Amino acid sequence: MNYYQQHQKQFVEGLTAFLRIPSISTLSEHKPDIQRAAEFVREELLTAGMTAAELIQGKGNPLVYAEWLGAPGKPTLLFYGHYDVQPPDPLDEWKSPPFEPQIRGNDIFARGACDDKGQTYLQIKAVEGLLKTTGKLPVNVKFLIEGEEESGGEHIEAYVKSKPPRLKADAAVICDTEMFAPDLPTICVGLRGIVYGELFVEGANHDLHSGVYGGAAPNPIQAIAEIVCALKDREGRIRIPGFSDRVVPPTAKEREAWARLPFNEKEFTEKEMGARALVGEPGVPLFDRLWGRPTLEVHGIRGGFIGEGAKTVIPARAVAKISTRLVADQRTEEAAAQLKAAIQAACPKGVTAEFKVLHAGAPSLTNPDNRFIHAAAEAMKQVFGKETVYIRSGGSIPIVGVFDQSLGIPSVMMGFGLPDDNLHAPNEKFHLPNFFRGIESVARYLELLGG
Amino acid sequence: MNYYQQHQKQFVEGLTAFLRIPSISTLSEHKPDIQRAAEFVREELLTAGMTAAELIQGKGNPLVYAEWLGAPGKPTLLFYGHYDVQPPDPLDEWKSPPFEPQIRGNDIFARGACDDKGQTYLQIKAVEGLLKTTGKLPVNVKFLIEGEEESGGEHIEAYVKSKPPRLKADAAVICDTEMFAPDLPTICVGLRGIVYGELFVEGANHDLHSGVYGGAAPNPIQAIAEIVCALKDREGRIRIPGFSDRVVPPTAKEREAWARLPFNEKEFTEKEMGARALVGEPGVPLFDRLWGRPTLEVHGIRGGFIGEGAKTVIPARAVAKISTRLVADQRTEEAAAQLKAAIQAACPKGVTAEFKVLHAGAPSLTNPDNRFIHAAAEAMKQVFGKETVYIRSGGSIPIVGVFDQSLGIPSVMMGFGLPDDNLHAPNEKFHLPNFFRGIESVARYLELLGG
Repeated sequence: MNYYQQHQKQFVEGLTAFLRIPSISTLSEHKPDIQRAAEFVREELLTAGMTAAELIQGKGNPLVYAEWLGAPGKPTLLFYGHYDVQPPDPLDEWKSPPFEPQIRGNDIFARGACDDKGQTYLQIKAVEGLLKTTGKLPVNVKFLIEGEEESGGEHIEAYVKSKPPRLKADAAVICDTEMFAPDLPTICVGLRGIVYGELFVEGANHDLHSGVYGGAAPNPIQAIAEIVCALKDREGRIRIPGFSDRVVPPTAKEREAWARLPFNEKEFTEKEMGARALVGEPGVPLFDRLWGRPTLEVHGIRGGFIGEGAKTVIPARAVAKISTRLVADQRTEEAAAQLKAAIQAACPKGVTAEFKVLHAGAPSLTNPDNRFIHAAAEAMKQVFGKETVYIRSGGSIPIVGVFDQSLGIPSVMMGFGLPDDNLHAPNEKFHLPNFFRGIESVARYLELLGG
Repeated sequence: MNYYQQHQKQFVEGLTAFLRIPSISTLSEHKPDIQRAAEFVREELLTAGMTAAELIQGKGNPLVYAEWLGAPGKPTLLFYGHYDVQPPDPLDEWKSPPFEPQIRGNDIFARGACDDKGQTYLQIKAVEGLLKTTGKLPVNVKFLIEGEEESGGEHIEAYVKSKPPRLKADAAVICDTEMFAPDLPTICVGLRGIVYGELFVEGANHDLHSGVYGGAAPNPIQAIAEIVCALKDREGRIRIPGFSDRVVPPTAKEREAWARLPFNEKEFTEKEMGARALVGEPGVPLFDRLWGRPTLEVHGIRGGFIGEGAKTVIPARAVAKISTRLVADQRTEEAAAQLKAAIQAACPKGVTAEFKVLHAGAPSLTNPDNRFIHAAAEAMKQVFGKETVYIRSGGSIPIVGVFDQSLGIPSVMMGFGLPDDNLHAPNEKFHLPNFFRGIESVARYLELLGG
């Protein structure tokens, strides 16, 4: 039994302590928890044997930095993760409280278990194992862990874009994606970008009685419905002029590889998603829709009377949270401008509409033919005992584009989540066997790169 | 100075006490306030000199009944009003708290000031004045005051439909409408009906990550937008098959009278409504749109993440409160069935939609050529010093249809509200001069009918 197998109990205890901190970055009342989570990460890095561990303060939540540079002549890896989490609501759908981690079967349930505390923590534990057992690392390692990934904060982006010398590295390593299937080692080579904002619509300057004014009064909720339907049609096609012009379709080779992935559509639909049917652009293959096409989604909406019973009011205003996911080579600023223009064009008479961007991140697409990705695929293959597959993800990790553009380094996305881990949803979990194999995969990766 | 002029201060004090009771019928936590408001009305009726005052219990909020039957051979009037009020939200838009009445200028501000506590109370005070000064009334009078008008409760409907002998009367008198313009005595001869309900839409059985599933997951908010846009087009035309087949257009004579009403569209739009522009069916005159055409409005909507910041979730469900106003000769059950069928037809793939009716009421249209309406017009003319006009209202008072069908009596709708009284909205008010003239108009009405 090696060090990693001997310390599984301690790893789970440490992760549990991390998960107990409700570090929800999008809710300002959790600022103290954000601070606690950052401190927790810094202390774990020190315990692991990393040096120069510190909190980098700036506009937004602190970044956690640490380094170990005792392998001159060897490559330098920059590990990335995030210690912040999504809000847990709807709370009443959790089987155990979101910030009181509970192990059921082989899974640990808590907000952030997989996204991304579990996957951040496994990087630290991989390094810790090598340092505790051999006193050194096979390559040079830096950590940069952020606390605004779930809220679209720009602290890390501003910091990386300032190109501080200590961030110099040969590749970034990101554990924030998922495996295509249980036991199937997976590397993600493409991510969607995002433009996320709030649509404010205003009609009259006060709520109006729907009997007295109905038939002549502008209704902001109806206007949001009009706008949303103009942006995307019933079939799921985005109708924003020019929006898809830059979209690069997947290559034939990539599509063939996707078609070979082990996949049961019925199980995906009914078990994983809990849905009645898949929807989306007619004639476009599913993995294209999930990974290679832009989306437009309404994440939340509120307007008028939403209490118990009936109130016959035409509300003065309504608001919706809307995002669009982008794919290579769409540009965030151009896409945001196109979206805003389409909203104005669709805005009905009698109301005003304003779309305020909350955050944005570029899409990314990595060429997998480099030594950093090859070694990662080999490491995962050795630990999992299966050939590693390459996929894309429909999600967004904006830092990948920033690492590329500002530091000139590729990102290696080794993901250990599972498709049913309920990211951003109630009952988020992390599969503990993957937590342990993730730690070993990262350690093996460092050995292969340094050897 | 007559009795009514001498007692204006006491009338305002009494109304203030009535308005302090937050008798919101649609919110169940206000049940005790409903009870207090009913008791308050009963005591006021006794103080006025009415007899047999009692609370009628049943399924729902209590009805208040009282009678004075000392004028054999004279007609019998049934006074109707309601002691319940709309919810006050949005609270932060009130200049003074909704249940702490405040007089500013000639207006008293409070939830229910006009709709309908002020107008219910003025009926009681009219009767009180005659009884205190002459010891009798010129006609027989009954009161039936309900507590579920704003929540669509069916207690009064069930009670009236049971045709209790004590409700026998020659006409009903309803003070729950408004004057067309300040100082312009007005009788309302038509009301819209209503079907009000909640639209529940469900997609997946749990919230989904919009990155991972966006492009293939059904979105219930988008589905509500699709449904709402299918029910009513951008221009305001209802698109429910068969829905308008029974709509009887206003007569040429009625339209001519409406066209003569003193009306400033710019002031109506900008000052009264606080809107940028009027909307609605192209080519249909404004008063037709407000009084003579059915409507479809979304009163409230909720779904997904509506907290601070960003959450990239595709929600499992969303809900909207939707009503349609009906006009003669539409039937509520038929209209509800047509609406439900149109919702099913418009429901996109991957979601289920269910519309649950919360309440419904038939439209009404009264022929003004009867002695009860003639006397009311004359009484108001004498008190206000101007010719009384006949209008319709776009609002709904379902009991009018029930009085017609179950008791076989016409309803006389003498309204003393003003167009800018902010019914169902923040800063509801009642114009005190109209409160006083309303009391005198009702008293004069009784004298004219009995004389």
